[in-house]
Amino acid sequence: MNSSVSDARVQALRSYAVPTPADPVGMPNRALPAIAPGSFGGMSVAHAPLARLARGVASGEVNPVDRVQHFLQVIAAKAELNAFIYVDAEGALQKARQLQRQIADGYDPGPLAGVVFAVKDCIPVAGLPYQAGSLSITRQVARQSAPAVARLEAAGAIVIGMANMHELSYGGLSNNMHFGAVGHPLDPSCVPGGSSGGSAVAVAAGMADFALGTDAAGSVRMPAALCGLVGFKASYDVIPRDAVIPLTFTLDHVGPLTKTVADAALVSAVMAQETPEVLSAGAAQAAPVVDDADARPMSLDDITAYCPQNFFNDLLQPGVHAAYNAALNTLQNAGLQLQRGTIPALDQAPAIQHVTLAAEAAQVHDGLALRRPEHIAPDIRSRLEAGRAIAAVDYIKAQRLRTALTHDVSAVLIGPSSVMVTPTVLTVASPVDAVIQQDDRSIPVRTVLTRLTSPFNLTGMPAISIPCGVDAAGFPVGLHIGGKLGDDALVLATAAAFEAALAVK
Amino acid sequence: MNSSVSDARVQALRSYAVPTPADPVGMPNRALPAIAPGSFGGMSVAHAPLARLARGVASGEVNPVDRVQHFLQVIAAKAELNAFIYVDAEGALQKARQLQRQIADGYDPGPLAGVVFAVKDCIPVAGLPYQAGSLSITRQVARQSAPAVARLEAAGAIVIGMANMHELSYGGLSNNMHFGAVGHPLDPSCVPGGSSGGSAVAVAAGMADFALGTDAAGSVRMPAALCGLVGFKASYDVIPRDAVIPLTFTLDHVGPLTKTVADAALVSAVMAQETPEVLSAGAAQAAPVVDDADARPMSLDDITAYCPQNFFNDLLQPGVHAAYNAALNTLQNAGLQLQRGTIPALDQAPAIQHVTLAAEAAQVHDGLALRRPEHIAPDIRSRLEAGRAIAAVDYIKAQRLRTALTHDVSAVLIGPSSVMVTPTVLTVASPVDAVIQQDDRSIPVRTVLTRLTSPFNLTGMPAISIPCGVDAAGFPVGLHIGGKLGDDALVLATAAAFEAALAVK
Repeated sequence: MNSSVSDARVQALRSYAVPTPADPVGMPNRALPAIAPGSFGGMSVAHAPLARLARGVASGEVNPVDRVQHFLQVIAAKAELNAFIYVDAEGALQKARQLQRQIADGYDPGPLAGVVFAVKDCIPVAGLPYQAGSLSITRQVARQSAPAVARLEAAGAIVIGMANMHELSYGGLSNNMHFGAVGHPLDPSCVPGGSSGGSAVAVAAGMADFALGTDAAGSVRMPAALCGLVGFKASYDVIPRDAVIPLTFTLDHVGPLTKTVADAALVSAVMAQETPEVLSAGAAQAAPVVDDADARPMSLDDITAYCPQNFFNDLLQPGVHAAYNAALNTLQNAGLQLQRGTIPALDQAPAIQHVTLAAEAAQVHDGLALRRPEHIAPDIRSRLEAGRAIAAVDYIKAQRLRTALTHDVSAVLIGPSSVMVTPTVLTVASPVDAVIQQDDRSIPVRTVLTRLTSPFNLTGMPAISIPCGVDAAGFPVGLHIGGKLGDDALVLATAAAFEAALAVK
Repeated sequence: MNSSVSDARVQALRSYAVPTPADPVGMPNRALPAIAPGSFGGMSVAHAPLARLARGVASGEVNPVDRVQHFLQVIAAKAELNAFIYVDAEGALQKARQLQRQIADGYDPGPLAGVVFAVKDCIPVAGLPYQAGSLSITRQVARQSAPAVARLEAAGAIVIGMANMHELSYGGLSNNMHFGAVGHPLDPSCVPGGSSGGSAVAVAAGMADFALGTDAAGSVRMPAALCGLVGFKASYDVIPRDAVIPLTFTLDHVGPLTKTVADAALVSAVMAQETPEVLSAGAAQAAPVVDDADARPMSLDDITAYCPQNFFNDLLQPGVHAAYNAALNTLQNAGLQLQRGTIPALDQAPAIQHVTLAAEAAQVHDGLALRRPEHIAPDIRSRLEAGRAIAAVDYIKAQRLRTALTHDVSAVLIGPSSVMVTPTVLTVASPVDAVIQQDDRSIPVRTVLTRLTSPFNLTGMPAISIPCGVDAAGFPVGLHIGGKLGDDALVLATAAAFEAALAVK
């Protein structure tokens, strides 16, 4: 029964007291039942821009070496954005050249041939250094890629470097004390979100085709929303977290940041080792050019969108509110059914999330703050120390409430095509010290950046953020779609339908 | 996905802070994957003595009213054993009479027709008071039977009363401060084990055909061993715990105490709502008398017994050691293959168990020790208070080590018919203040009574204790068989084969 737990993983479990990068996540998410494989079942992603690109590379129309060189130039030109901790210029060029030779020799280059991606600094890539954006963890060169990365590499994708991040993934600002603050592409003085901030900026600023991040509270979806990208986290456990430097044991997910929903689906399917049509139909080289008609999105008439009226509207800033409502109107006019209601349990979600995350992070990095205090940012150090003080009874209570929350959120999604639709973030990108004024309270934005995304980590439900417009100053706003555990394909298909409807409005 | 969590269960989750008897277990065992139904698949229990008895009742050969009256007489005659907290004489007689009428009218009385059972005081039975052997919980009359009980009642079984227990299930002595110390049938001054001590004595002293207990550390299997009975806990989650007053959230199991393995299999299959042959073959009334040849036990030649050489031998008392070794020799001579090895992770099991149980019990009974200190035994009060002081980081660490333990214990059971064979308890029944002398240490027996059984609660593995002999003074010794998660049918078939081989030696 536990054959799914590798020996290496179990060895690492025993080394709990010493947080090494080799220490994988060890504890299944107890609030959640196990997910059967097949979440992406049969989804067609042949039309994904990255699939087309790979076909171009495979056919020789697109030169992968030129593309890597182009990305390296952009990275150099936008160095002030601090999107990368390590750029593997030589390695990426070499892999692109090798790919060219293999294509010339007639080998199948894979369904992501020549696609270039950035990897968050907490996810090991063979041959590259990684350290979760922290000096508190001994920097080391990965001997093996994490399975999620290895599957992308095996599909022909090329890693261009390790993306900057909020130190240890423990924060949403990506203002890394050791490697510089990641700047927003539209205004470097604004926060691009995090913890996968470098990953978001790498894609948004044109330094890579897509990027990988991790998400324990919204660390993929939130920066995606702030940077005008698509950010997806699949159902808990569908995409392997093995070998990733964890933040927690039951909330972490690996997920992609992309420019389109189809690309997020393609990349996720490869990481989950599922076979959407583009993969099962044979090699990218052999795949015929697919007519767009084959990739017609799901009809909005078939989708029911449940919009909770409590929790998600608290503190929602006017610019986000306006863009989100405009998008909803567009979708409704195009046929989407809206259902409104309240889910009281959601109001407890921030407390449940705080106790769970703080206690688990303190255990992951047990003693780190005490052993190497000078190598860790003061905000993270104090959070890790505070996490040690949480009582087991409160952690257990949080897990019980989490089970009830998961029940209540799932219970409103009754139809076969029911999804939950909400804003992704309360604000647009803003300076690091921005505050929200509510009545006579002054709430720092940094404390509520993941407020709307984290319920989907507690429940493990698949969730995606897609761009849905901009505020008055032109900063992107994200729309968030969540589905029942295992409904990954529905969430992606819905997101693709929304994306299409919002594009033609 | 969470449709398996009933609304009532979720409501109860929210009432976590107030431990009411209606509060069911809310948190899935996070160390364990979910078990698919079908653990007992197709097992033949038509030859079980309780199945034969039910057929006798159905055919009119056996008078169920006489049987209830007989048990009531034994209960009265052995009142000094304090096996019951509440005896439902009138209700049991009434049900027996009703059963007779229904049989006379030609109705199918069910596969457990007229079988009489005792229920641990923490498991609600419709119409009977229950309070987990504690005055700290408001005594109430159950409006509904727990599903495990309701399924037995629907099969024709009759509850005779609520069995005494260690208060709140939190201890192995059953020396209940409020309802009297349960006495061992062979010597009332000796401890019959616990926490399901009253359940064990009810069966061993002839006050019921079988009994239900709960087991978070060994509370079914340990008293079964000390009283010469069979005690079984199925794989975690196979038998519903709903509505049972919990001790913990991830360790609790409901299980039967019986005189034979076949009876344990029959009762468990009914509680798990599975259909062994005796049930699927149609009504008990219609079932033909089954030849014993049809119930031939599994061949010992086909079974591999893994015997860990570490952990289980520490502190093992000579009388247990001798009886256990003699039984193993008998089984080897009859063809059993033995495999010996060490599982170092087992040595950590007591610490993992302590942290998990103490923290979860403190959360279950949050504030109870403070609110009603005069109504709770001092030993339990201090344990609940100490449990509150456990840090979340230590609880989380314990859960991670638990995952590793589960992996290691499962990993040695590689064959299709591999089971783990060990002694059930380190000692035989002994006085409440007995100690084990080891080198110059003096170890109270009460602190190690569940040492050998609790690893199977941490791992959730199916496990059974069967009688395997007696010590020099005639006190029973138990042999313990554990299997991989989901291998319930294998564990039961192995136990039946051992039982047969040990009987004919």
